[in-house]
Amino acid sequence: VAKRLEKFKTTIFTQMSMLAIKHGAVNLGQGFPNFDGPNFVKEAAIQAIREGKNQYARGYGVPDFNSAIVARFGKDTGLEVDPEKEVTVTSGCTEAIAATILGLINPGDEVILFAPFYDSYEATLSMAGAKIKCITLRPPDFSVPVDELKSAISKNTRAVLINTPHNPTGKMFTREELELIAALCIENDVLVFTDEVYDKLAFEAEHISMASLPGMYERTVTMNSLGKTFSLTGWKIGWAIAPEHLTWGVRQAHSFLTFATSTPMQWAAAAALRAPDSYYVELKRDYMAKKAILVEGLKAVGFVVYPSSGTYFVVVDHTPFGLENDVAFCEYLIKEVGVVAIPTSVFYLNPEEGKNLVRFTFCKDEDTLKAAVQRMKQRL
Amino acid sequence: VAKRLEKFKTTIFTQMSMLAIKHGAVNLGQGFPNFDGPNFVKEAAIQAIREGKNQYARGYGVPDFNSAIVARFGKDTGLEVDPEKEVTVTSGCTEAIAATILGLINPGDEVILFAPFYDSYEATLSMAGAKIKCITLRPPDFSVPVDELKSAISKNTRAVLINTPHNPTGKMFTREELELIAALCIENDVLVFTDEVYDKLAFEAEHISMASLPGMYERTVTMNSLGKTFSLTGWKIGWAIAPEHLTWGVRQAHSFLTFATSTPMQWAAAAALRAPDSYYVELKRDYMAKKAILVEGLKAVGFVVYPSSGTYFVVVDHTPFGLENDVAFCEYLIKEVGVVAIPTSVFYLNPEEGKNLVRFTFCKDEDTLKAAVQRMKQRL
Ligand SMILES: CSCCC(=O)C(=O)O
Ligand SMILES: CSCCC(=O)C(=O)O
Repeated sequence: VAKRLEKFKTTIFTQMSMLAIKHGAVNLGQGFPNFDGPNFVKEAAIQAIREGKNQYARGYGVPDFNSAIVARFGKDTGLEVDPEKEVTVTSGCTEAIAATILGLINPGDEVILFAPFYDSYEATLSMAGAKIKCITLRPPDFSVPVDELKSAISKNTRAVLINTPHNPTGKMFTREELELIAALCIENDVLVFTDEVYDKLAFEAEHISMASLPGMYERTVTMNSLGKTFSLTGWKIGWAIAPEHLTWGVRQAHSFLTFATSTPMQWAAAAALRAPDSYYVELKRDYMAKKAILVEGLKAVGFVVYPSSGTYFVVVDHTPFGLENDVAFCEYLIKEVGVVAIPTSVFYLNPEEGKNLVRFTFCKDEDTLKAAVQRMKQRL
Repeated sequence: VAKRLEKFKTTIFTQMSMLAIKHGAVNLGQGFPNFDGPNFVKEAAIQAIREGKNQYARGYGVPDFNSAIVARFGKDTGLEVDPEKEVTVTSGCTEAIAATILGLINPGDEVILFAPFYDSYEATLSMAGAKIKCITLRPPDFSVPVDELKSAISKNTRAVLINTPHNPTGKMFTREELELIAALCIENDVLVFTDEVYDKLAFEAEHISMASLPGMYERTVTMNSLGKTFSLTGWKIGWAIAPEHLTWGVRQAHSFLTFATSTPMQWAAAAALRAPDSYYVELKRDYMAKKAILVEGLKAVGFVVYPSSGTYFVVVDHTPFGLENDVAFCEYLIKEVGVVAIPTSVFYLNPEEGKNLVRFTFCKDEDTLKAAVQRMKQRL
């Protein structure tokens, strides 16, 4: 294995999903719904396949899908974006992240990351040979440590990578935090790569796109995907929106990582993005009910539950149960209790920082959430 | 754009497909069929979508598909491969190439490439920071220059990248050539990465998998895909087969490039790979008829046509028509004749070497092939 990937293990999501199956545990680990995506999107895919939309898509996206992406982005942010020159369709947001980093970061470039972070960020930065500077968001509020950020960003910084709503914590970057990051990036001529795949799962606060802040569009790559919003995580459709000079780098890397993304699924994704507002209203309502079941349940079980404003995740402190760290706790939880959660130490450069925290997802039907809570009440 | 990608342009396939549309030209450029894939595969995808197989697949593949891959590979090569430990499903063969190179090659590693080569090889090696040593296959027979190869491979070589049947020339590496490469790789402890996406389009010779040669499986990554064999290039389903110690590297990179590949399409791909032998017999028969139309036509038009044993491509010498190089010829062909071909200079490290050659594809219905030949007869 190449040296830059040596330190990484099988992703925690895969490990935990496999353990869930092995132990017949209720899986509140990896973030995939156990219910299906909407029929109108599935039918659009079926129609595209039947109509013979089965050959290579244009590398940067099926025109109809690029248009649907900019239409939704325009509605959400007020920004007018060129579907032909500023959008790149990718095989999931993971590929958008890889294409952005490999397309725009040179070996030795300094990139700022907030911990905890989704594991692919670190691995992909490592593939690109970047120098990572990591700033830790600390519980209970996971807010940005202002002084630390100010002293971290300099003229030597190439990019800041953010994720809002934030996996694993459910934190949403506040307007003040985003404005501070924006000001520092403008001052020091720094790029922002922002992963906003949970933008439609914003429950307690309004989602703010970094690109919508004054002066930021021109230095921002906004990444998103279909999977979370349409409960179709297995379709692997993502995209990156960026001004032309940055899109050029993203597309170059994308061309050689996957070349193009599934044609029929892009047609279906275009239909999805044209969903009426009522779709999103209903989605949120459903998720708020699920969230209430899980959060109330976890509190009743005895966890310290940290506030989650968005995403379908919630982070808790497991220390009331006396296990030595997050990994030990998750192992106990799977084997003795029959529930899967995700240890958070893998989301940190320094695993010690995550040792008290584990993540649960509520992207499961209500019966499953209740069953998990029930098991924890009885066996923990 | 990151320095390692600076020299690369929009891929030639995209450029030419866009020009084809703009000029209403008959597109014998990019290798995608203008006919649809088989119904039984499309129906299998539709069924998977309807059945709700729409969430994240296991990172390295849907179990049923991994099994189908090893079953076909076993039948083709006589090798028994572990579907759980030696197969990685990817988003097309392009991703298999990227994951193999980024997962197994360190900056500074020396990799041997045969020119002409599919453009992603060079770009991806460049992303990985590899040192490329390039050996040119020369017309008319595009055979391997034995002495050059012998002096190129040494203990400093990390890997040799081959492609058989070969895009763009249609060359198939002979048993003697493969045995020579194998002997040198074993002697010098070198890996082989082999792109065999056209293995089922072998017309004039028997396809030989490098992995099937004695002592080679343990040092070989075999890459393949669904698209060419099942006329579904837009589905982007590929895979890499390799012994466990190499699969580990491929999977690490894959985890962070795309994480997983479309779940419903993998179920359909599993059904495809279980096609009876008659499917492949019919496919070959159809393609041989198409090839005859194109090759006879090109000869009648006045090209020097080089022999193509496999793939759905054929390379010709355009110099009888007096244009200064391949790019100029292709421009003339699009604008004045209304036919698209691919200039081959982009397949060389030194573009000069490809200046006499252009590539045509015959993965089009017979009427389209006849129309293209007709236009060339009249206007060239
Ligand atoms: C590939 S897992 C992707 C992210 C996610 O769903 C999770 O964090 O669980
Ligand atoms: C992305 S184009 C892939 C290869 C091919 O089809 C071609 O060489 O034309």
